[in-house]
Amino acid sequence: MNLTGLNFLGEKRSGNGNQAFRAVNPANNEELEPRYIEATKQEINQAIELAEEAFQVYRHKSGAEKGKFLETIADEIMYLGDELIERCIAETGLTRKRLEGERARTVNQLKLFGEVLVEGSWVDARINTEESSPTIKSMKMALGPVGVFGASNFPMAFSVAGGDTASALAAGCTIVVKAHPAHPGTCELVAGAVGKAIEKTGMPKGTFSMVQGASKDVGMAIVNHPYIKSIGFTGSFNGGKALFDAAVNRPEPIPVHAEMGSTNPVFLLPGALKENKDNIAEGVTNSVNLGVGQFCTKPGLVVYEDSEDAQNFRATLTEQFQKAQPGTMLTPDISTAYRKGLDNLLQQEGVQLIANSEENGTNSGNAHLLQVGSDHFLSNQELEKEVFGPVILAVTAENSKKLVRIAENLQGHLTASLFGTEEDLENYKDLIAVLQRKVGRLIFNGYPTGVAVNHAMIHGGPFPATTDSRTTSVGTSAINRFARPVCFQNFPDSQLPDELKDNNPLNIFRLVNGKWQQ
Amino acid sequence: MNLTGLNFLGEKRSGNGNQAFRAVNPANNEELEPRYIEATKQEINQAIELAEEAFQVYRHKSGAEKGKFLETIADEIMYLGDELIERCIAETGLTRKRLEGERARTVNQLKLFGEVLVEGSWVDARINTEESSPTIKSMKMALGPVGVFGASNFPMAFSVAGGDTASALAAGCTIVVKAHPAHPGTCELVAGAVGKAIEKTGMPKGTFSMVQGASKDVGMAIVNHPYIKSIGFTGSFNGGKALFDAAVNRPEPIPVHAEMGSTNPVFLLPGALKENKDNIAEGVTNSVNLGVGQFCTKPGLVVYEDSEDAQNFRATLTEQFQKAQPGTMLTPDISTAYRKGLDNLLQQEGVQLIANSEENGTNSGNAHLLQVGSDHFLSNQELEKEVFGPVILAVTAENSKKLVRIAENLQGHLTASLFGTEEDLENYKDLIAVLQRKVGRLIFNGYPTGVAVNHAMIHGGPFPATTDSRTTSVGTSAINRFARPVCFQNFPDSQLPDELKDNNPLNIFRLVNGKWQQ
Repeated sequence: MNLTGLNFLGEKRSGNGNQAFRAVNPANNEELEPRYIEATKQEINQAIELAEEAFQVYRHKSGAEKGKFLETIADEIMYLGDELIERCIAETGLTRKRLEGERARTVNQLKLFGEVLVEGSWVDARINTEESSPTIKSMKMALGPVGVFGASNFPMAFSVAGGDTASALAAGCTIVVKAHPAHPGTCELVAGAVGKAIEKTGMPKGTFSMVQGASKDVGMAIVNHPYIKSIGFTGSFNGGKALFDAAVNRPEPIPVHAEMGSTNPVFLLPGALKENKDNIAEGVTNSVNLGVGQFCTKPGLVVYEDSEDAQNFRATLTEQFQKAQPGTMLTPDISTAYRKGLDNLLQQEGVQLIANSEENGTNSGNAHLLQVGSDHFLSNQELEKEVFGPVILAVTAENSKKLVRIAENLQGHLTASLFGTEEDLENYKDLIAVLQRKVGRLIFNGYPTGVAVNHAMIHGGPFPATTDSRTTSVGTSAINRFARPVCFQNFPDSQLPDELKDNNPLNIFRLVNGKWQQ
Repeated sequence: MNLTGLNFLGEKRSGNGNQAFRAVNPANNEELEPRYIEATKQEINQAIELAEEAFQVYRHKSGAEKGKFLETIADEIMYLGDELIERCIAETGLTRKRLEGERARTVNQLKLFGEVLVEGSWVDARINTEESSPTIKSMKMALGPVGVFGASNFPMAFSVAGGDTASALAAGCTIVVKAHPAHPGTCELVAGAVGKAIEKTGMPKGTFSMVQGASKDVGMAIVNHPYIKSIGFTGSFNGGKALFDAAVNRPEPIPVHAEMGSTNPVFLLPGALKENKDNIAEGVTNSVNLGVGQFCTKPGLVVYEDSEDAQNFRATLTEQFQKAQPGTMLTPDISTAYRKGLDNLLQQEGVQLIANSEENGTNSGNAHLLQVGSDHFLSNQELEKEVFGPVILAVTAENSKKLVRIAENLQGHLTASLFGTEEDLENYKDLIAVLQRKVGRLIFNGYPTGVAVNHAMIHGGPFPATTDSRTTSVGTSAINRFARPVCFQNFPDSQLPDELKDNNPLNIFRLVNGKWQQ
């Protein structure tokens, strides 16, 4: 496919703006062709108007039709072949292996939502026919056009046809994507694939649009448009919070599902340190360096009680960090921010650098291991903030009470991990109870990176990890973010969606007079 | 029970403040004993700290235990006997019949949530055990302490132990209620019943507190406290929006479930007007006057196409309104606001008064029927706003296109009603499609007042009807407002809640590897 640098307004390509930018290859800081033309306000509005028009048709498509559409997007992404992978390597500095894996994840995610639609029970159909009141039937229905903001760190899986788009399309919403300016070419290729799937499956043209832009104005124009009914976002706290603030202060406030990362504390309990410290040191080092530390679930904090085992663990971790392989960070800006973040951490009282690996090449993200005592940590919330890149702050607690105190003091995170023996778990029940309130996912003897896409996964958590802890941005429950329940009282079958018809033609699970049945 | 005028801080009664107020009997404007002492900031904080402490215990109670607790609250409310009904009549001017009905509703609502807990599947337990990834299990868990703001118009069903409290307690949250200053005695009686249920079922003392107050400071102190994790509110747009604005602009934003009423448009289609106009005129008049027009679902707008049938309908409606029985409004302030709201409507261009019933007694809420043409209606959003009281604005559309245009132009409402024949429904498919996007509940050949409490009911809708259209404040799905999913990766059964244990000891419905099963 020939990259054009244009915006996708439904099936139309448009580039009327005066502002333009180019992607930069972070491996050598060279600019990549073509120029990407930032969408004008008018173009953005046009995309949103098309999304609203298309919504009126798309929302009535059956689960089977929408499922086929998602599956076709997946196929079209695969048909892009190596061109997609190569452009993405050039724009992100990520490895071929990683990006091929991410493509598989993206495609499987689309297919999984397709399966959810074909099965159909996600709508939470409920029927009450008791004689004491009129017949009441309810089900979830799509909210309307959704604005999607892709992440820098997952140029496919959390981007143009990533989790937010897949789940919003599955719910029956139409989409206006703001392409990430760090990988506009990858975005254009995938947007082209979505466009082909729209054509092949006969979906309304305005079901999907994508606008380019490097300035904040583009995003704000999406969030502030009255037709936009929800936002999906993955990225930084500052970015997500700005969208949230705009969305909740609109004349009509709308929900924002912003996943804003976190430091994902890892608690090492005494039994695990005694039995398994070398493996854990190696595993933690691998996890923090995966994707050059640029994962939302990167383990940024490691917490343990002081002991001989802990000191030995730290010594092994130090060795591991020293010999860790650096990678190229996603963008020059992210590389600069990583250095600033490290400097900031190192300037905080009590923080020491205990290991770092060698730099290697342009925008190199080399591993850093820092440590701090628990009193300093407890008195300085700055130390809990995410630094995007391969850095761990190791926090030494004087005793188990301090360890639990650290957990109690935490803000919201996407994950927390616990390494322990079964005996540790019994001894640290308090800690588990505290952590359940702090995170979306609690991991036992495992590392937080690697978020499986399945029916049970929750990738979310209390603020500031997200702006809405009641949902997830990975896994099939993500579809619920973009729907709301609508209730029909006393309606004849002929006017009801199939999901609510008396004879259950879709054979879905429904709650009928308080009993789940198929 | 002896009314004390004090605040409930867990089991403790406290009244350290300098501000006090008394309830007023709206039937004669006389003040009622005792003085109610507004809670101080310190007392409010103490209630919230108790709620946080209690949460750490209460959230681990089993569904059966919490179910028993809710059932016991219901029993204790019934044990209050006539004292509750009489105090409530004195504070609200509502009739004995209405209040006995509301008490039954309140008690049944508590019991229904109890049943949901005993059955247990509401937690949406999901388990993935595919070998390709670690074992992932997730379920919904309580958010934390919740602030509940009762409504003026349902002194029991949307108040101290009403729908918000019942659903939040069911989810496993602890509660701090802000009593409604219009019926503090009713609130005190019910709070006493909740206290007794806590004692009888051995729940932690801080599970429930209630503070009194007539100033906005009390509510704001609740919303702004960092331990409070969600808000339930039923009341006016201004009240709900102020809480929402405060909550989303906190350092840690929290969700607000504010049900803020609406005008609940009723669309009369040609076939229905031809066949059934007299019955509909009578039914609409009864519905608008139910509870003196002080229901969130009061039909405040009636829309029809001009025709001879429509003119006849309006003539009958005029007669019905003229002879409607007025009732006592809830408070002198609400009565004054009703007059102001009517004056404001009548000052809008094109609005005419066509009927009103006689006033009768103090704070009388007499019925008013107003009319306006569709062009005036479409160009003036003021006409869509709720006026709390027994008033209907009848909107005449020149043709069916204008009728649909009116629907398209609507903001969010709790309900919309359609009166029609089956043929009408076929002819007005567009209208139905439009209204599905505007409301929480769509009613065919029925009146919007009367919101059945069951598993399928949705009492919600797009903004400005509520601040979160993705939920309901009536019906068993309301429990989902106060919980969020938590995911456990690779955890041994011994450390998991029963809902997620391998052998499914609670025998609940779970989504296991993508299949719903029990």
